[in-house]
Amino acid sequence: MRIVITGGFGFLGQRVAGALLTRRTLCGAPVERLVLADRVVPAGSPLVADPLVEVVQGDLSERLDEVFAQPVDVLIHLASAVSAECEADFDLGMSANLDTTRALLDAARTQTAAGGPPPRTVFSSSVAVYGFDPALPLPPVVSEATLPTPRSSYGTQKRICELLVAEYTRRGFVDGRVARLMTVSVRAGKPNAAASGFLSGIIREPLAGLPATCPVSPGLRVALASPRRTVDGILRVTEAERGPGALDGGLPVNLPALTVTVAGMLATLRRVAGDAVADLVTVAPDPAVEAIVGSWPAAFDNARATALGLRPDDSFESVVRAYIEDHPEAVAARMRGRDG
Amino acid sequence: MRIVITGGFGFLGQRVAGALLTRRTLCGAPVERLVLADRVVPAGSPLVADPLVEVVQGDLSERLDEVFAQPVDVLIHLASAVSAECEADFDLGMSANLDTTRALLDAARTQTAAGGPPPRTVFSSSVAVYGFDPALPLPPVVSEATLPTPRSSYGTQKRICELLVAEYTRRGFVDGRVARLMTVSVRAGKPNAAASGFLSGIIREPLAGLPATCPVSPGLRVALASPRRTVDGILRVTEAERGPGALDGGLPVNLPALTVTVAGMLATLRRVAGDAVADLVTVAPDPAVEAIVGSWPAAFDNARATALGLRPDDSFESVVRAYIEDHPEAVAARMRGRDG
Repeated sequence: MRIVITGGFGFLGQRVAGALLTRRTLCGAPVERLVLADRVVPAGSPLVADPLVEVVQGDLSERLDEVFAQPVDVLIHLASAVSAECEADFDLGMSANLDTTRALLDAARTQTAAGGPPPRTVFSSSVAVYGFDPALPLPPVVSEATLPTPRSSYGTQKRICELLVAEYTRRGFVDGRVARLMTVSVRAGKPNAAASGFLSGIIREPLAGLPATCPVSPGLRVALASPRRTVDGILRVTEAERGPGALDGGLPVNLPALTVTVAGMLATLRRVAGDAVADLVTVAPDPAVEAIVGSWPAAFDNARATALGLRPDDSFESVVRAYIEDHPEAVAARMRGRDG
Repeated sequence: MRIVITGGFGFLGQRVAGALLTRRTLCGAPVERLVLADRVVPAGSPLVADPLVEVVQGDLSERLDEVFAQPVDVLIHLASAVSAECEADFDLGMSANLDTTRALLDAARTQTAAGGPPPRTVFSSSVAVYGFDPALPLPPVVSEATLPTPRSSYGTQKRICELLVAEYTRRGFVDGRVARLMTVSVRAGKPNAAASGFLSGIIREPLAGLPATCPVSPGLRVALASPRRTVDGILRVTEAERGPGALDGGLPVNLPALTVTVAGMLATLRRVAGDAVADLVTVAPDPAVEAIVGSWPAAFDNARATALGLRPDDSFESVVRAYIEDHPEAVAARMRGRDG
C-alpha cells in the first residue's frame, strides 16, 4: 500500500514514519511506498535514505498532484500551523489548517470518484478544540460527548476540519477518522513558544543539566501523553475498523491521557534523576500561562480510546524513563548510566 | 442604521423585513436603510416599494461590494441552500452555505479593519446540526450544551458556520450571534420537498379544503415554532446584548420550541376547524420519512432562549389560529368566518 504522511518531517511525522518503516505493514498489508510531504526536509534525515520513502517537498496545497500521482491508500494528515501562529496571523491559520485540509479531502474525493480506493484518512486534531467558554464551563471529566467550545483560531480550525472529515466519510468520499492529540510530554529538542512547552521543558532541560522554570503552581493538573503513546495512538486509529463499539458514526477519538499534577511530575523527576537534577527547576508562577494551561481539560474519560485498544502511559515515571532511553544524546552524561 | 438581510425575499426574510419596516427601529436606533439581498426578487413584492428598501439582486458572493458599499450596522444572514439541495449536490451546498458565509464574514471583517463598525451579524442556523450519530444518541432533552453531531451536508455546513461566527466574534471582527431555527409550522405557500414539509402540510392543505397525507405515526413528538415566533426570535437575538447570562461566549441560541405530538396537532386541527376539515388528513406512515423526522430532537431546554426574553408558542392551537389570521386567502371560505 501507498501511505502518505503530511508533516512527515515534523516531530510526530518522523516518529510515525519511523514506526511504519520498522513494522513494514499497516492494516494487514505491506508498506510499499511511504510518501513524506513537508515544507522542509531536514538535511541528513535517515528517513530519506530508505528505499520505500518518497519525499514531496513544498507547500502541500500546491503539491497535491504529486501526492495523488499514484493512488493513496492511507493518508495521515499531521501538517498544521501551530496555535501561536494561527493566533498571530488569522489568514495563515485559515489557509494552512482549514483550506489545505479541505483541498486534501477534495483530492481524496476525486480519487474515490474516479474509481480508486477511498483513502483511509487520519486527521490529527487537538485537545485545543476544548476551549474555555464563559457560558459553558467544561465538566470535570471530558469525553468525546463533551461539546468542544474552541476559544482559539487553531482550535476552531481543528474542530471545523473534524466536522469535514466526518461529513466526507458519511458521504463515502474518504474513510476518515479523527485522533485528538493530547499535550505531548516529554518532547525532545529545543523549547518552543507554546504555552504548554514547559510541560516538556521542566523535565528535558534539567535532564540535560540546564535550569528550567515552571510557570504554574505545582498543584495544577494536566493531561499528557508520551511521544511513544501518541504515535501508537495515531497508528491504532489508522488501523481501527468501522463498526458499533469502535469507529462508529462521526465522533473523533480522544487519544488516552495520563492525568498528573505538575508537583507529581517534579517528584518523578527527583525520584528518577536525583536531587541535583530536580533542583534545577525553579517554580515561578506566571498568571498568563496559568490562565491558558489551567483552562484545558485535565481529566478524560478514555473509554472510547480503550475500546480501540489504546491505553494511556502507565505512569509519568515510565514517560521520563522512555525519554531517557530514546534520547541518550539529550541527557547529561551522569544521568545516562543511572540505574533505571 | 443600515440593515442587510440576505435571503431577504425568502419565506422568513420577507417576514423579518416586514417586521422591521413596521417597527422602524432596531437596537434602539432608527432603520434608515434596509438592504434585501436575494437571487430572486418576486414580481410585485410590496417590500420593494418601501422607500427605505434597497434591493441587491444576484449571487450574494458576487454582490458583496454592493452590500458593503455603505457601512453595514446589522447583517441578518438568512440566505441558504436547503437540506435536500445540499444532499443532492455537495459542491453547491459547500459553496452556497460555507463559502458564501465565510466571504460575508470576511467582508464584514474588512469593514471593521478599515475602522468601520463591527457588523452585528446574525447567522440563522438550524436544528439540523443535531443529527443522529449511531455512536452518540441524543439526550431526551436537548440544550445548547448538547454536542451537535450533524449527519447531513446541510447540518455540517451550518455547524461549521456557527464555529466561524463564534471565532470571528471572539477576534472582534464582527459582533456575531447564532440563532438555531426550529422546524417552522405552519408555513404558508406551496408544499416543499423537505422531509418536514408535512408538519405544515397536514394543517395548511386541509384548511384550504385539500386532502393531505401524514407520513408518520401520530405518536411521534416534534419540536416546532410558528413563523411569528421564529421572526420574533431572530429579532430578539439580533437585539440581545453581550454579557454573562445572555450572549456570553460562543454558544448559539436554540430558538424556543413547542413540543407536540402529531396526534395533538391533528386533534387541534379538528378542534379549531371541525371534523370535515380534519377528516381530509390520511395517516399513512412512510418508514423513510419517519426515520428522518424521528431522528430529530423533539424536546429542548429553552433556558438560554428564555434568558433572552424569547418564549415558545403558547400552544399549537395559537399557532393554527395565527396561521388562519395571517393567511385568510389560503383558508377555505367556510373556515374564514368560523368562531375563533
